[in-house]
Parts: sequence; structure tokens; C-alpha cells
Amino acid sequence: MSSMWGTTLKISLFGESHGPAIGVVMDGLPSGCPIDLEQAAVYCRRRAPGRTPWSTARQEDDLAEVLSGLYRGRTSGTPLTAIIRNRDTRSADYEALQQRPRPGHADLTARRRYGGFQDPRGSGHFSGRLTAPLTFAGAVCSQILARYNIRTAAHICQSGAVKDQLFDPLSCDPAQLDALAGRDFPVLDAASGTRMADAVLDAAASGDSLGGAIEGAVFGLQAGLGDPMFDNLESQLASLLFGIPAVKGVSFGAGFQAAGMRGSEFNDRPVMNKNEITFLGNNSGGVIGGISTGQPILFQVAVRPPASIGREQQTIDLVSGENAVLAVRGRHDPCIVPRAVPVVEAAAAIFALDVLLGARRWSHD
Amino acid sequence: MSSMWGTTLKISLFGESHGPAIGVVMDGLPSGCPIDLEQAAVYCRRRAPGRTPWSTARQEDDLAEVLSGLYRGRTSGTPLTAIIRNRDTRSADYEALQQRPRPGHADLTARRRYGGFQDPRGSGHFSGRLTAPLTFAGAVCSQILARYNIRTAAHICQSGAVKDQLFDPLSCDPAQLDALAGRDFPVLDAASGTRMADAVLDAAASGDSLGGAIEGAVFGLQAGLGDPMFDNLESQLASLLFGIPAVKGVSFGAGFQAAGMRGSEFNDRPVMNKNEITFLGNNSGGVIGGISTGQPILFQVAVRPPASIGREQQTIDLVSGENAVLAVRGRHDPCIVPRAVPVVEAAAAIFALDVLLGARRWSHD
Amino acid sequence: MSSMWGTTLKISLFGESHGPAIGVVMDGLPSGCPIDLEQAAVYCRRRAPGRTPWSTARQEDDLAEVLSGLYRGRTSGTPLTAIIRNRDTRSADYEALQQRPRPGHADLTARRRYGGFQDPRGSGHFSGRLTAPLTFAGAVCSQILARYNIRTAAHICQSGAVKDQLFDPLSCDPAQLDALAGRDFPVLDAASGTRMADAVLDAAASGDSLGGAIEGAVFGLQAGLGDPMFDNLESQLASLLFGIPAVKGVSFGAGFQAAGMRGSEFNDRPVMNKNEITFLGNNSGGVIGGISTGQPILFQVAVRPPASIGREQQTIDLVSGENAVLAVRGRHDPCIVPRAVPVVEAAAAIFALDVLLGARRWSHD
Amino acid sequence: MSSMWGTTLKISLFGESHGPAIGVVMDGLPSGCPIDLEQAAVYCRRRAPGRTPWSTARQEDDLAEVLSGLYRGRTSGTPLTAIIRNRDTRSADYEALQQRPRPGHADLTARRRYGGFQDPRGSGHFSGRLTAPLTFAGAVCSQILARYNIRTAAHICQSGAVKDQLFDPLSCDPAQLDALAGRDFPVLDAASGTRMADAVLDAAASGDSLGGAIEGAVFGLQAGLGDPMFDNLESQLASLLFGIPAVKGVSFGAGFQAAGMRGSEFNDRPVMNKNEITFLGNNSGGVIGGISTGQPILFQVAVRPPASIGREQQTIDLVSGENAVLAVRGRHDPCIVPRAVPVVEAAAAIFALDVLLGARRWSHD
Repeated sequence: MSSMWGTTLKISLFGESHGPAIGVVMDGLPSGCPIDLEQAAVYCRRRAPGRTPWSTARQEDDLAEVLSGLYRGRTSGTPLTAIIRNRDTRSADYEALQQRPRPGHADLTARRRYGGFQDPRGSGHFSGRLTAPLTFAGAVCSQILARYNIRTAAHICQSGAVKDQLFDPLSCDPAQLDALAGRDFPVLDAASGTRMADAVLDAAASGDSLGGAIEGAVFGLQAGLGDPMFDNLESQLASLLFGIPAVKGVSFGAGFQAAGMRGSEFNDRPVMNKNEITFLGNNSGGVIGGISTGQPILFQVAVRPPASIGREQQTIDLVSGENAVLAVRGRHDPCIVPRAVPVVEAAAAIFALDVLLGARRWSHD
Repeated sequence: MSSMWGTTLKISLFGESHGPAIGVVMDGLPSGCPIDLEQAAVYCRRRAPGRTPWSTARQEDDLAEVLSGLYRGRTSGTPLTAIIRNRDTRSADYEALQQRPRPGHADLTARRRYGGFQDPRGSGHFSGRLTAPLTFAGAVCSQILARYNIRTAAHICQSGAVKDQLFDPLSCDPAQLDALAGRDFPVLDAASGTRMADAVLDAAASGDSLGGAIEGAVFGLQAGLGDPMFDNLESQLASLLFGIPAVKGVSFGAGFQAAGMRGSEFNDRPVMNKNEITFLGNNSGGVIGGISTGQPILFQVAVRPPASIGREQQTIDLVSGENAVLAVRGRHDPCIVPRAVPVVEAAAAIFALDVLLGARRWSHD
Repeated sequence: MSSMWGTTLKISLFGESHGPAIGVVMDGLPSGCPIDLEQAAVYCRRRAPGRTPWSTARQEDDLAEVLSGLYRGRTSGTPLTAIIRNRDTRSADYEALQQRPRPGHADLTARRRYGGFQDPRGSGHFSGRLTAPLTFAGAVCSQILARYNIRTAAHICQSGAVKDQLFDPLSCDPAQLDALAGRDFPVLDAASGTRMADAVLDAAASGDSLGGAIEGAVFGLQAGLGDPMFDNLESQLASLLFGIPAVKGVSFGAGFQAAGMRGSEFNDRPVMNKNEITFLGNNSGGVIGGISTGQPILFQVAVRPPASIGREQQTIDLVSGENAVLAVRGRHDPCIVPRAVPVVEAAAAIFALDVLLGARRWSHD
Repeated sequence: MSSMWGTTLKISLFGESHGPAIGVVMDGLPSGCPIDLEQAAVYCRRRAPGRTPWSTARQEDDLAEVLSGLYRGRTSGTPLTAIIRNRDTRSADYEALQQRPRPGHADLTARRRYGGFQDPRGSGHFSGRLTAPLTFAGAVCSQILARYNIRTAAHICQSGAVKDQLFDPLSCDPAQLDALAGRDFPVLDAASGTRMADAVLDAAASGDSLGGAIEGAVFGLQAGLGDPMFDNLESQLASLLFGIPAVKGVSFGAGFQAAGMRGSEFNDRPVMNKNEITFLGNNSGGVIGGISTGQPILFQVAVRPPASIGREQQTIDLVSGENAVLAVRGRHDPCIVPRAVPVVEAAAAIFALDVLLGARRWSHD
């Protein structure tokens, strides 16, 4: 589906980093839901560049203009489209990269895919900037989900060698999530956050970049949603998360730790609690057999370090056909993990609303 | 898409573990490709149960009957359908589990999803047995891919605490892959394999089960296939892999290791080699910006330990509404990782053929 | 989607006319619905060949074997698959047609599409025989729809120059529909039916074939289902109907008559009737703006005369590269319209259930 | 797919008649194709309102702003998005229609579907104005198709009781098509056109509207494209055409005439012509068995008369719950057929490019 995703709620992303605008079409939203655009702007600002030392210096307010699908402040039920104009573009920075592609970057694969006709300015459609409309879409979905007491959240759980604590696997702490959303460097444990930020600045100081990992969660999704095989919740969420540039891994619950566990240790035991079924543990990450258990959906996302670094690297020169060296100029994030946190949160919201809207009305008689 | 997957090549899986038959429809195959059903049967036998001490004792030959889509030994171009009859079924084993659901198993989520109308015998459509037609589909795809010098492979890279070596990230060793396909416990390093098998038998001896991880690869896929956003290769392969029961994580290249790496370390540097571009390293796992680099596509899959264990576990009794205990009887795998290896290999083949067939004819003029 | 159709309920047809079996996978059925297979067999028998003078002499009972998706007589919620074995096949009849393609038939286009590797026996996947599993799928859907008081029906409205009366556009007459389903030559007006049958036999007697038209209806579908643009009800039903071999036209309500009408004549005026909205007339065929009005959905389908005729026709010889003549031997229907009636009815049922199941749960708050 | 359509080339339409903008995302275009926006504007102007006596008086230049997907005048291969701002809106006209819905219009069905939250101004997303971005998309596709000598065309073939001649079914006359594209009232036979225009003005003079029919064609599509069952060319084109507001019927080749024909009359006989296969006649409309024959694809579209008429009609009052009368004010087309001609032509171009791009590369070995 190229730059489209979704089953019941479909989103279609478009735009290039230095083109006139980037944007998103959201097709399949329910009608009648109030959308607060101010609140959506606050949500998106967490992702916007130029605000912190670990972000690119590019200045963009990322303010979305809604072109359709809202009427008198509510969703009309027909496609909601929003665009974000690109303002602070310095395309000259990218001329040289056409000749000497950045190691680890899509410069070379894009060239193969599009025969050299792709827009290279600011990495074009490959830019992390495409996550701005994705985040806006997530902001809209979050407001609708809130009406069903569903909430998504994310935080940095690893940056370099430093790790953060994880979400409580059994319950949702709204105060913790509110605090999290307010932090420039979104971690649960402030002390870890300071060390993480130092690691990023350290890498930046040596002209380098740093990877990281993000933990995300969907709180409040009812049990019984999803399907056993390819329409399982893990496939659906993973397919969306891998669409975020730089994501190299996605896991649920115990994830790769499960490889070292025994069944007696991994299995989340159900218990009766005043006629309600709860579980002791959440190694399954809220999904068993592709279907929601009613526990928080917990997942982790591995994020590679940004490819564009100031340090000199070996590459090739496509004009001379020789090996060459490259030190990337221009404005780049030394670590995209902090800005990727609201993107992951937004992706989880889009996923959750798609699942909720697609829930089969007639599961039995 | 429920139990359907794919864009150009679409597969539709069906069946229940103890129903009359399981099977697969493959829609979108090219016409004129010779398919050797004997060879496909050999491929599928690697997954079949009842052959090793670490497999369930259920005896199934898993022989596929082709109902359509083959004519005079070649694909006709119209949907290829194969069914596998279920023979060695002992459904009585599953009666009790309806009342006392297995911890960690889909018994409870299936009940929520289908209102109790699902077929519970042998876990019905949730059974790992559904991977038999998936493997058959992979066998068919592999034979077609072979004509384009594309090959997929997989091996156990972790079982309990023991790890295997990994594939050479830069090239394909056909002799190594041939040897791998012949092993009951498919590992690259035989010594590790012995220790892994011991760990499995050890768990089994104490009525327990064990998790593991699998490394998979697609060798020979040309550069330039895939798309930058949601139709990226990682999303596509991950969505298929998460459809395999028990998979809890999927990563590409350096995967979650990338979280601790710097850009200067992660970036795979291109080099000119007799007018061909190659790379020093493959941390990207053969995919950058969602598009193939031409290097091997390398991925890892985390597999949870089987939920059904003989050891007594705490659970609930849905009739009495009280907490209860359960020791699962019946025939179960203490570790599904060995049998999951050909499934992962098959999934990679289905993915690769879908990508190959979907390659845009008109990428530029 | 090749031989797959549907959004919420997806069907995947497979098989060749003279292959081992034809069949259908139905993915997305609700769970818990009782399915009476005897009743489904009665439904399918209306389409089965060999029963009347205007049908091919091929003898097939068209009895479906259900392989999955039914448990204790109810839908389990996972894919329902049924196969029908091909029994009375005389493939030798088709050898010559590979050399001298039938005018008006898919012999030539299939050859272009599949490079000559398609199964030509009995026209392979192009055979009208593929409508047998489609009809079975419709029979299953009809039984589920009946629980929601939704019913589909069809009758021959034209055969050669003779026309039948049309359905009452404003209401459903169950007795009329029951009688219709019992007729070998399904028309509303028996006198017209006799003349139509005579016209068919007349054509047959001169080694020729005859076209016709079918009127179909969906009764009982609630108002407010569908979408304004491409997911409109007319697009969805038409895309399914054009999948039935030999269909060359689809229209709704006044259809092509609308081209000659004025708005004051065409517009269906709403009236208040004891606080319920009804309409005076149904020129819109129950769909306005792509969305159901609550009135019967009425449509017509044009069916071309069968291409295979005994009369000598001009064609080409692909071996000699010369013009040639052909008189088709083998067993063929002189008019497929009578047997296409239950197929159209079945297609309407599949469509209606897909629409019903896909109805957005959250159309507003 | 709501307001999305397509398989390989996907289009996503959005916008409301009186909202800020309407537009289209085209996802899946090949890269490197020059697009002349001036030429596209000329194409779109044929559909633009306010230019003739049989059009609404609303003044819109319908100039598309391209936001993405073009780089240095060529397609970049990533989604091409264009928006058209709404300028001449008079929303007050629509207030009363919320209370007294227009007979024959989507006022009532939209209300049921969206619970009253839809944007009613200018009929919102239901407006024929949404065909402006559809036409722009068709203009883009046409320019790409031209490189492969594929061309689409359309003309009014019926308006009221007057009929135009039809396209030559066997060949393409470029001069005829060029002339056609230049006519305000696009017909092949000028004399018929004059009488048709008179019929429209006559209806308009009495506060009424008129229906019509359009013949469309795709010239130059190679043989062998399409699929036998649901992915057949007729299903695909019909599903797109029924997405155009007011279309009530779609037929191919002889269409509904086929109902009265015999096989010996209908079958298009192939002939050898200097080693090339041609056909005597084109009753099949260029599609047999769902697959292109290589002849022109010929189809007809029935268009209902516009619902909004100045004459007084019976309707209901949703506030009082009583029957009422309504004379629609505002600016409306007395006949949309002339302006629908470029829309049909555009839809055919979108269809043809989707088919061409989706052509399987590996149809055989």
C-alpha cells in the first residue's frame, strides 16, 4: 500500500521534506467526534524540530491546516485531510549527497528504486519529516480514543547503553503519562534521562549520532479484538511501526527475552478477581493468539542511529566511480529517539483506532 | 485481511487442527513455472510433527493435495490451492481446556473474540498446525524464486541461553544452506545445536517448555525493491512473520543492538568493487529506507515458549468462577523453534516472491 | 484482487472446470451462525447443470464438502472453506479449441494472459463452473442474512426479445420469491417464461445460443449503509456482478432509462408515513449517494449469449496461421441465463452480508 | 476503500464542496514521467463550472496546486498530491435543505450514514465537485498513458431522447478525438449535439433537469491484461465509474443489447491479418473473460438527471415531521452530462494506467 496504511481507518501520507507541503488523508473516521486543533498542535509540538540540543536546528512550527473532514469542530465522517507547509528549507545542502551518497542512508536505495528521479532535497519522501503528518493523525485519533478511555503512550527505554525503567505491565498510571508527555527528553526515570541526554550530546560533540529504543503502550483496549492469523494485532502494529524511518526492530511483551524463558515462567496466569479475569504478569504484551487480552498492549521499538553524521566516513563517488570520503553537512538530529517518542505514541493511536473501528459488530449472536 | 496476506501474490490460509483439512489458496502466481511436488513434500517434512524427541508425538505426513492451479506440472497462473487432511486427531484431550483455559494460550482470547463458537479441538484455527499449508506455500514460492537465484534460509540462533553463530552478513554460502536444510535441529554450529537440544529435553523432562530465536535470510533479492513508507520491506515481512503463532519479536540487521550503537559504527559503508557497489557490513539487514540494498536481507524472530506444559499452573475455572490449577495433558511440543525454522524460511519465500512479482515494471523511463 | 473479492467478508474462489475440485474460502464470517448444509445444497441445485433442456448435459451434483469454519453446525468465525469435486469431465472435447479458438470466448485472451500455460480443459478457471462455489457462498450468506430479515432474489427479466415483469420496486412479496426459487425457468410471469424458454430452445435447435437479462434485488437492507465515493454500494455490487462470466452490463433502479428522464420524473419523493420515511417510487434502486435508502436495492444485469455454439463460425487456426472455420462440439448451455439467476442471487447475498458486516459501528456518538 | 480506489495506482479523494479545498493523492505513479501542468489545466477546464448555459453558474477556475510528487517537472515516484481551493461558495443556500431534504438527493442518506454531522454545504463530500480532483488525476494519467500510445475518450451518446452516433468500434480516429475534446457540448455528430443542447435548455427553462448517457473508450491497451474473475477489467472500471455521482448504469460493448442477441450474432470473429489477429466486430467491448483483447475498450454510462431542480416537488419536513413541498434554490446544473464527459474520460485514464502498471511482469517464462 505504498504510503497508505490501515484497514477500516486508512491513512495516506504524502509530501517531500523540501516540497511545498507534507500531509495526510485520514479516511474512515467516525463522524461527530469533536477535534480540538489546539490540543493537536500541542501534541505535534513534541515532535517538532529546533527545540532542543539533540534536535536538528531546522525551525518548523509544524502547524497543520485542515482542508477537509471537519465541520463545526467535529469529524464529518468523510476524509480528514491536513497539510503542513515546509518553511525552513535549505536545499543546497543536499546537492553533493547525490554524488556521494551517505553511508547507511537511503540515498542509494532511493536512486535504485526511482531511477534518480526522486526529490533528494532534505531526503524527500524518505525524510523523518513525514512523521509530522503521521503525528498529527495520531493526535486526532488520540482525541477520539479518549472517549473510549483508550490512551497510548511511549518513552525512551534505551539510549546508547543507558536504560530507563519500563511501564507497569499491569495497569495505567495517568499521572505518570501526563508527566511523560511534558518532558523534552521523555523518560520515566529522570536520572536515567539525564544520563541518556548526556550520551546523546557526547555523540554529537564528536560529530556522531546515537541509537536507542522506545517502549510504547496502548492502555484500555478491550479484550477480544484482533484475529488469529495475518490480521493479528502484532502484525498490524508492527507494519505501522516499521513504516517509521529508522525503526529496525519491534517486539511485544517479553519480546526477545522470551527466547531464553521457559513456559512456566512466561505464561501469564489468569486469576479471578471479583468475577473479572485479570492476569499475573504481562509477558504476552497484551496480545495472545493475535487477539487482545484486555491488559495493556506493550511493545518495544529499536531505533538505529541517524545516518547523517559530521564525522568523515568512507563512501563512493557516483560521478568518478571511485571510493571517496564524506562528512555530512546540513542540519541533522544526533539522535532521533526523543522526537520519535510522540511518533510512536501517534502510531499506536492510529493502530488502536483502526482496531477499535474494525471490531466486528457481529462476533456472535 | 484475517487469514489472508499479500499484495501481488496473495495467500489465504484456512482450516482447524482437528477439522477435515487445512489448506492454502495462492492467488497471483506467475504462469508456466514447473513445480515439483515431491520436492515440496521434502520441504514440508522438515516441519511435520512426530519425527523428533522435541516435537509433539502427533503423527501427520502433511502431504498436500493440489486441487487447482497446476496443469501438466506447471503453474497455470490461476489460484493454486492445496489441502492437507488431518488424520491423527485426539479431540477428547481438549474438552477440559474449555473449562480451565491454559495460561499463556489463546483459549481465553479466542473465547472473547468468537463468543465460544470457535472450534477448540487442537486449538482449532489457532493451532501451529496452520503453519503446514504456510510451509507448503513457501515450498512452491521457493521453487519459483530459485529460477531467479533467490533463496531463503533460517536457523535456530538461540534456544534458552545457548546461542548459535549467525549467517555471514555479506554473502550466501549454498553448501552451508544445503547442510542446514538437512538437519533435524537446524543450527549452523553443531556443537551449539547439541547444547540447545539438551536444554529443550531438560525443559521437557521437568514438564516445561522452552523459547528460542530464529535467524532468517533472503539471499539474492535485487536492489531497489520496496517502498519508503508503509509498503517498506520490513513492514511487509514483519506482518507475515508475526502471523506465525508464538512470534513475539522481529528485527532486521543489527536490530535491537542498534539501540546501543553510534552512527559511525552502524552505517554500512559502500565501496566500489569493479564498477559494482558493495558494502562493508550489513547492519541494515539489507533494507534501507524500506528498499532492498542488494545485500542479504537478514532478520531475527523471537519465539516464546509453548504455553501448553505438563507442569501444574494456576488458572481459572470458567464454570465455577473460581481460581484453579491445570496440568495440560495431550501431545505438545516442548519447544517449537526447530519446527518453526522451515516455517520462517517459507514465510521469507512467500514475502520475497510477493516483492519480486510486485516490482513496478515502470520505475522510470 | 484476482479471484478474491470483499472488504469485511472476503471470498476467494479457486479451481478449474476439469481439475480435481473447485471451491471457495469465506473469510470474515461472524461466529455462531447455524448453517444448514441441506438447505444450502437445495440452493445450489438450482444452478447445477444437466437438469433442463436449456442446460449443458454435463452431470454434476455440485455437492460441497466443508473443510473448515463450521463447528457443531455453526460458523466458528474462522475461514469457512468448501470444495466441490469435478466428476463428469470430458476433456478431449477441448483439445481442438487450443488450435482454433472459439469466437467470443476467452480462449484467445487467456492464451495472451497466461502464455498458453492455463488449463484449457472445460475453459479451466474461466468456466462458468466457478459460479458453483460462488453460489454455495451465497447460500451460506443468505442463511445468515435471513436472521436480519434480509433476503436477495433474482429472476430472468429478458431472454431474446421477450421481457418479464419486474419486481415491485417498493416492497418485498415473500410468497412471490418463494415461488420464484422453485421454478426451473425463474420468471415472475409464467406466460412470459414459456415464451422465453421457447426462444431458447429455438436458438438451440439451430445450433445457436441466446442472451438475456436478469433483475436482482436485496430486500430488507437498512438505510444508511455504504459510502459516498468508491466504497459506494453500486461500485461494490457491480464489481462482484461483473465477476460472473458473461455479464456485460449492470444498472441500478431506472438504470439506462434514466438517460431519457427529467429530474421531476426520476426523483423518488419521500413521504412521512406514521413517523417513518418512505418513498413514492424507487428509480434510484435503493441507493442514493452510494448509500442505502432502506428501499429494496434493485439492479439489472445484461448477460451475453454463450460463445460456444454448434453453428459453424469463422475463426483462425493458430498452427497454420490461416483463417479457418469452427463448429464447437462438446456440451454447452444454449442460454446460461436460467442457471445464472441463482448466481446473481448468491452474489447479491455475498454483497449484502459484506455491507452489513462492514457497517461502521461508530457512525457517530 | 471509502474514497480510495485502485490496486497498483491508488487514488485518494478528499474534500467538501464548500470546505477550504478538495484534492487527490495519487500513490503508485511511476517515476520520471514529465507532467505538463498547463496541459492538465486545459484538460480540467472542460469540467469546470460556469462556462456554458447548461452548467451551474458557480465560478471556479479549478486550478490545481501540486503539493508533492513532482520534482523538476517529472513524477518523483512518491505520492503526487494536488489540491484545488474552493472559492465561489454560497453556503447559505443549503441551510434549508437540512430541514427539507431534496427528493432524489443524498440529503437523507447522508444524514442516516453520518448522523447529521456531515458537511451539508454544497452537498459536502457528495458534491459533483469532487470530480474536479478526479479529473486532474485523469489528466496526469493521460499524459503518462500517451507515452505508451494509450488514449481515453468520451462523448455524450444520449441526452433525453436524442442519441449521438458511437465510436468506431474497431479503431481509433485521433482527429475525431481531438475535435471532441474541444467541444463545449462533446458529441461526435454536431447536429445531434444541437438537438441535445436544446433538450437540456428546454428542461432548464421549465425548472427541470435532464439525464443522459456517455460512451467512453480506452484506445491502445494491449491484449492480455486483466484477470478472469474479480480482478477483471470490467469490474475494475465499473467500480470506478459508479464512484462518479449520478451514474446508474455501466455496460461494455453491446451491453444490454446483448440480452436480445444470439451467439452467432454477438461473437466477434477473429481474423488473421498479416500475421496479426484482428476481429470483425467488437460486441465484447474489448474485454473477454475479464482480459483485454487488444481492441478498443468500449463502455457506456447511464447518468441520472440532477436531483436539484427549481420545480416544486413533494418532500418531508424533518422538523415538523410533516409532508412538505420544496423548490430548490441555489446554482445547479440542469444536466451534468456535458461536464461528466471529461470525468468519464479521466476515470478511464486512471483505470487504464492502474491496469498497465499492475500488469504482471512474470506472466510466464
